[in-house]
Formats: sequence, structure tokens, C-alpha cells
Amino acid sequence: MAGSSGVRLALAAAEAGALASLPCAMLGPDQIRAQVAEFRAKSRAPLNLNFFVHAPPAPDAAREAAWRELWRPFYEEFGVAAESAAGPNRAPFDEAACAVVEDVKPEIVSFHFGLPSEALTARVRAAGAKILSSATSVAEAQFLEARGCDAIIAQGVEAGGHQGVFLRDDIAAQIGTFALTPLIADAVKVPLIAAGGIADARGAAAAFRLGASAVQIGTAYLKSPECDTSPIHRAALDAGGDTALTNVFTGRPARGIINRAMRAHGPMSALAPAFPVAAAALAPLRRAAEAKGAGDFSPLWAGAAHALAKPAPAAVWTRALMEETARLLAGGD
Amino acid sequence: MAGSSGVRLALAAAEAGALASLPCAMLGPDQIRAQVAEFRAKSRAPLNLNFFVHAPPAPDAAREAAWRELWRPFYEEFGVAAESAAGPNRAPFDEAACAVVEDVKPEIVSFHFGLPSEALTARVRAAGAKILSSATSVAEAQFLEARGCDAIIAQGVEAGGHQGVFLRDDIAAQIGTFALTPLIADAVKVPLIAAGGIADARGAAAAFRLGASAVQIGTAYLKSPECDTSPIHRAALDAGGDTALTNVFTGRPARGIINRAMRAHGPMSALAPAFPVAAAALAPLRRAAEAKGAGDFSPLWAGAAHALAKPAPAAVWTRALMEETARLLAGGD
Repeated sequence: MAGSSGVRLALAAAEAGALASLPCAMLGPDQIRAQVAEFRAKSRAPLNLNFFVHAPPAPDAAREAAWRELWRPFYEEFGVAAESAAGPNRAPFDEAACAVVEDVKPEIVSFHFGLPSEALTARVRAAGAKILSSATSVAEAQFLEARGCDAIIAQGVEAGGHQGVFLRDDIAAQIGTFALTPLIADAVKVPLIAAGGIADARGAAAAFRLGASAVQIGTAYLKSPECDTSPIHRAALDAGGDTALTNVFTGRPARGIINRAMRAHGPMSALAPAFPVAAAALAPLRRAAEAKGAGDFSPLWAGAAHALAKPAPAAVWTRALMEETARLLAGGD
Repeated sequence: MAGSSGVRLALAAAEAGALASLPCAMLGPDQIRAQVAEFRAKSRAPLNLNFFVHAPPAPDAAREAAWRELWRPFYEEFGVAAESAAGPNRAPFDEAACAVVEDVKPEIVSFHFGLPSEALTARVRAAGAKILSSATSVAEAQFLEARGCDAIIAQGVEAGGHQGVFLRDDIAAQIGTFALTPLIADAVKVPLIAAGGIADARGAAAAFRLGASAVQIGTAYLKSPECDTSPIHRAALDAGGDTALTNVFTGRPARGIINRAMRAHGPMSALAPAFPVAAAALAPLRRAAEAKGAGDFSPLWAGAAHALAKPAPAAVWTRALMEETARLLAGGD
């Protein structure tokens, strides 16, 4: 959950016995080193570093200009200027990030949007890390297994934030967790980690029944005190509301609470520039709206089951989830 | 599964101890009476009749003409003429259908797309039937509970065929079974029947864990010998392939295997006339393509987990499903 979670949530998860994960997609090498050092200073638990592996797109000035033009009425409404600078930095896993991995030696490295080059992947493995990546289809799971992933995250369409999809463009064909998990379980031999819509023990137990060996939980922590969820994001979660996949914020489909920006030119737009360039056009609107306390132009990432999230301390909630899940799996009601 | 299932599948389900259902959306009153009589002659098991409750749309000649015009290149390719006649008949639950219900007294009546008028609903209840309807959101579930539904079918977006959605137009906000089931379970007191993506014991056990009291299974039967699935539909299921929600075949969103018609002007089209009028423009293309053995313009309804369907006899498969589900729920692996 890049931008919404950090060391505090990772420590709380580790304290409860879950695998702690640090999202690195929006961090530079020094920030990653600093966060890992802070985690290691306070916990001896294993650590998962997560990276995006998109290919940075070639500049497309005409497309970017047309995209900004689309949002011009809102620039005028807020009295802000369009910007051609990049939005929030989302760097793909590269030489510098790989050097950090080799140095800090995380027990697990997970990737989103596929895998890095074979050379980089081999270096991560040589550094001692188990390698995970997300699959949103059977074909993606088979791709990841063939390239040596140690486990696969079966990411259903309910998941909040970016869909890890990397082998197809047709977002209409994305599959829910309920169907995706058994389909992938039947297609690969490596362990599955189910993700998407899992927000309580009912969901965790159901995911195990569908063929998962573990579950990945994100949205359910967004209301936790240890999560760095912004006040505007928290207010949107508290207000409730439907979610949808949208590409207006970054250029790639990601699930968030439906807001004004998504209604205006989305939720999916054929005009959005490639990931992550689309973000630049929204940046001044997001700042202006947030300055007034509104999340109308902010990515309010949330999974489809976000209404199940509780504002509980993360470690307490995680331990209760584990106990209740075990009870359900043993035949309890 | 109007058009794909009938008395034979209902009898097989009843034989195994499942609730048998007859889809009546494409049947006239005499056909419903005949099918119920055939079922009753061979089984003393309870019977569920299912009806659509859409409001027949006002004619919109301009919209229908524009829709036909969109498909003209295909008419020319196949050498067929456009038709303005209605496509496959899908009659809403009305006075005549209600009279049949009062006469044949099904134990259960289920509705799709909401509920009929209060007067008709009261007559169904007075005839002794328990009343079910489908909800695709928390708001729809609360609507149905407030109007006295005895149980609610929580239909996730994975479900094959028509989404029962009736309170919103934004298909991007539809929710997967994994998130929908616990959200509705927390919001209503009546029993839930989970539907969408449930195709084996793993799915059934998972649905119970998520808060369902029963499961509804459709797509998993499409390969059964007792199902009236057309040879072209069976071939498409055997070939595999992704599914998507599409409105090109009927005007309402329904899940089917992605084919040429969906790729050409869908899967969702803002131009499609209202349900069920959109079907007329596709009818001559469907007939011409099917005459050549192709399902390129046929609605190949299937849920997102259709690859899990087995060509097993329905009663045998259903009994095995029940036994395996019970074993899993008791804590088995």
C-alpha cells in the first residue's frame, strides 16, 4: 500500500506473527534503506519488500497535453495551473533498488506488474530472498511459476489499489477472488496467497477453502492507527461508498472509492497516458481540493470490502483474525 | 438459466436433494404449466420458479435503428437482412404468469431485477410460495428485505448470465462474490444464498464461511448431460476463454464468454437499446453464424469460474458436492 503504509504497520504485523511488508514503489534507495533499518532495529521478524516493475513509458507529449486539456475546466474552477512535471514518483525496480536488496537482504521480495528482467530477478534470488508476484489470471500465474516464483499472489478484482495485471489490456475480463483462487490453484503447483476482498476471518477462512495457503490483507488495515492513511482517505472510508477500477489517477487500473475525478472522466478512460504519467495532470487538482479538505481528486484506494475494515490496533486485530480463522477452519461456526 | 436448463436438470437437482429451479423468463404461461406438470409427475420435491421482473421499455425507434446500423457491416458479411422484430421473447412476470403461480403453487418463486408490484408480490405470497430475489449490492439486499423477501440471493459479479442489478446503472461498481457475501450478511437478517463463481465444493464451503446459508449453482451444470446447453455453447465452454459483462446481446449486463460480437461493439455499449430490445439486431447474425457452427454472435452465458465445470451427470455431481462441502465445513482438508 505505497503511500498509505510504512514501518509502523509492518512492525505491528510482525508483532502479531504476520509477514511484514514495506511498499517501496514510491521510495528512493535511501528511503528504503532507512525504513528497513528502522524495522530491523525493532524486530527480528522476516521482512517483505514490495516493488513495482512497470516499464517507464516513452514520453508522449501530445497525449499528455490532451489529457491535461480534458481537466482544464477543473483547473479553472480551482484557479490552478496545469503542470507538465511528473506526479508522485513511482520508480520501477531497477539497478539501484536491486543493489539495496542485495545490501539489506529482505527475506521476501514481491513484485507487482510481473517480474523484473531475468538478470535482476536472479540477483534478488542470489541475495537470499524468496520471490513473489501477483497474478490476476491463470495465464499470469503460469507465467510467474514458469519463471521461478516461489509463491504467487492471486489478486482478485476486489483488491484495492493497482491491479497487478501485466499480460492483458482488457480490464473487463478481470476476475473476482472467488473464481480466481481455485482456477489458479488448479493451474500451478507453487503456494498461493489470496488477495482481494479479504477483510476478516470469514474471508480468510474462505480463501483457504478456495485453495490458498496464505492470505494478503491490505484494505482492512487502512483504518488502523498504525497505518499512514491520510485524514482525507480515512474520512472517505468512514463515509463508505462504492469502489471501481479506475485509470484516471495513474494510467493503470486501480480500485478506489468512486469520487468526482472518477465520475468526471472515468472510471476507465481511453485517453489516460501510460502509467504513471497520468498522475501529473491530477496533481494540482488533488492539492487544491485536499487543501479544502476534499478528496475529490485524490486516489482513495480501497478494496471492494472496505466497509468491513475496523479502526483497531493492527497487531491486536491481526492476532484475533488468525485465531478466529483457525477456529473456522477447524469446523467452528 | 433461461434457454439452457429445463425439466431434466430440475429433476436431477431434486433427485440429489438440491432445490430444483425452472427458469420461466423465456416461457409463456402454457409452457410453464407444462414444465411444472412434467416435474410434478416425476418428483415430489419442492420446486422453484424463476421470473424476470424488468419493466418492458417504451419503443425507441431511433435508438433501435442506430443500433441496427452499427451491426450493418456484419449483415453484409453474412448476407442477411436487419430485422425490427423482437428477439427471443423475455416476458416480465405479469398477470398471466401470476395466475399460473396461483394455479400450480410452486414452493418457491424467485425474481431477477427486483420484485414485481406489491399487488403481484402479495398474490405470490398468498399462493403459498416463499419469495426470493437477487441482490448485487448492500442497498439492493436492504430493499429486498424491507419488502419481505424470505431469503436473498447475493449475486456476485462472477455469476454467468444476467446480473440482477436493479438499483444502479454503474456496472463498474458491481462487486465480486467474495466481498458481496459478507457485506450483505452484515446488513440483513434474512438467510443468504450465495451465487457467482461457485462451481465446486471449495466454492460452496467458502461461501458458507463468508456468511451464506445456501449456495446457488448454475454455470457448473452447463456441461451436464441433463442441461439443454446448445452444442455451440458447449463447444465454447470446452474451448475455455475469458468472460466479461456485456450488454450487446440483450441491453442489460450479463456475463458470457468473450466472442466476436462482444469484441466488435462491447463488451458494454452505451448505444444498446433497453432490455430486451437490443437482442433483435443480433438475431439474424446469431442465426447465420450458428448455421455455420459458430457462436460469434450468440450469448455464451457463463460464470467467471466456468473452467471448473465438469461434464458429469447432474445428480451424481450434486451429491458429491454436498458430501465434500459438508466434509470441508467440518474441518476437513
